[in-house]
Amino acid sequence: MTNYMPIDHAGLGVLTQDECLHHLRRAQVGRIAFVENGEPVILPVNHGMDGEVVVFRTAPGAKLFAAEAELSVAFEVDGFDVDRRTGWSVIIRGTATAVEDPKDTARLDLLGVEPWADLAERKNWVRIRAFSMTGRQVVHPYRA
Amino acid sequence: MTNYMPIDHAGLGVLTQDECLHHLRRAQVGRIAFVENGEPVILPVNHGMDGEVVVFRTAPGAKLFAAEAELSVAFEVDGFDVDRRTGWSVIIRGTATAVEDPKDTARLDLLGVEPWADLAERKNWVRIRAFSMTGRQVVHPYRA
Repeated sequence: MTNYMPIDHAGLGVLTQDECLHHLRRAQVGRIAFVENGEPVILPVNHGMDGEVVVFRTAPGAKLFAAEAELSVAFEVDGFDVDRRTGWSVIIRGTATAVEDPKDTARLDLLGVEPWADLAERKNWVRIRAFSMTGRQVVHPYRA
Repeated sequence: MTNYMPIDHAGLGVLTQDECLHHLRRAQVGRIAFVENGEPVILPVNHGMDGEVVVFRTAPGAKLFAAEAELSVAFEVDGFDVDRRTGWSVIIRGTATAVEDPKDTARLDLLGVEPWADLAERKNWVRIRAFSMTGRQVVHPYRA
């Protein structure tokens, strides 16, 4: 963390795009939010990165429906250090899209992103076509 | 984790209400999702529990607006063990409400929930009036 990090109106440090991508690549679990019948829904997912694009596997259900309907989604990863009262988050906003081209799914199958929950088969790939990616970090400039 | 945990249609173990509350009390950070101009928004917050009710502090901004408009929200906490490919999540659905009664805010001020980001003052309390609370856990019944 540097004191030269730009600060937003809420007093949070602003991460660069490279820092955001670094966090997205290291995090194995994120949370996706979308709107279902006018209500916000949030679900955890273990994701991978296809280059700079967030992808995840899912079974038929709410997340796949969101992708097939090309719904607007928000995707978040974060990391916290409770003792030091610090942390960061990266938020992507975009559109969920089902991946249907066999050439694409073959490439994604090599990413090593396996669903953790193995009682139901999750073989559908979803990608998030991002229109924005922002990252924030708690900064405590008055501490040593 | 027990093999006797009920399993949902997606193959995930279903947590009891007591297990959900236990996780909510231990987690210090969650994520809130709401709908803004028809688009899903997701933001991390450090929260506390006022009995069985999730509360957090915020500054004027999107989260306080959501509360003043009594928007529908979803709130999520989770915990993961990447090596063991397991984890749990608890999701609350409800309505965000600004806490305005001084008796309530005085009680909440004693919870020890302090915002981590100290560059902007966050003195407004928001509570989530829940209409549902659900918890899930990844189960690997075929492992020892």
